[in-house]
Amino acid sequence: MVNGIFPYAVPMNYVWHKGSVYLHGMGSGKKEEILSRSQPVCFTIYKEHGTVTDPVPCHADTAYMSVMIFGKAEKVSDPEEAAEALWKLVNKYMPGYYSNPLTGTFVEKYRSSLDENPVSVYRITPQWMTAKENFVESNKLFNLEMK
Amino acid sequence: MVNGIFPYAVPMNYVWHKGSVYLHGMGSGKKEEILSRSQPVCFTIYKEHGTVTDPVPCHADTAYMSVMIFGKAEKVSDPEEAAEALWKLVNKYMPGYYSNPLTGTFVEKYRSSLDENPVSVYRITPQWMTAKENFVESNKLFNLEMK
Repeated sequence: MVNGIFPYAVPMNYVWHKGSVYLHGMGSGKKEEILSRSQPVCFTIYKEHGTVTDPVPCHADTAYMSVMIFGKAEKVSDPEEAAEALWKLVNKYMPGYYSNPLTGTFVEKYRSSLDENPVSVYRITPQWMTAKENFVESNKLFNLEMK
Repeated sequence: MVNGIFPYAVPMNYVWHKGSVYLHGMGSGKKEEILSRSQPVCFTIYKEHGTVTDPVPCHADTAYMSVMIFGKAEKVSDPEEAAEALWKLVNKYMPGYYSNPLTGTFVEKYRSSLDENPVSVYRITPQWMTAKENFVESNKLFNLEMK
């Protein structure tokens, strides 16, 4: 996010759903104060595979992949859409934890809890995206046994 | 970083050294183009411990810790300081890989390679920092066996 002249970078849980990134917050705090202004954001995910060794230190490298998504973060006002996104989120981070007995009334539960609970959901629909990868064979990656 | 009206968030290797964060780049590309303007930046690190389970989905949480550093990214012009930071970087990401035989001439090597090689080093000296932690006992964290 951008907050005045400074950027403001926070790690957040997210889920990719129907072509958008969904995030959630507790309805208060600095992050939400900025997000609620519906400003341009950059959403970046990455995976670091490891450090690529090379006998020449200057040629050591990092193996990774990353995706950057640019767009506006918009607060989701539709409770149905919010509930769907939250359900996707819990199933991403705790797959199988909320099993069948809970599922039936889940969306309804969330919908009613949204009234009493300040949980907020934000949607970033990408205006554009970039991706980068530096892939190497795993035997070139640094591990402590190489010492 | 901030790039026009959009933020620009990139994952980077870094090392904390003498009260500053040191980063390095290859002397070209979007990131360096923005960094070279010596703008206000936000440098964020985090560690996610896991997802905190709760029978009520709304109460599920994330255990993590994070630090946000705000300041200006400045290009390091002193080759000695740049070499020192690069040496710290390789030793952080490949501890012990460049062992004693290399160490002797290492700084000198780097210094000369800095002339021919466009490797660049940036220093962020914190203007202010914030930190946050949400700690829980590990037996409350989600793991697949809970399914």
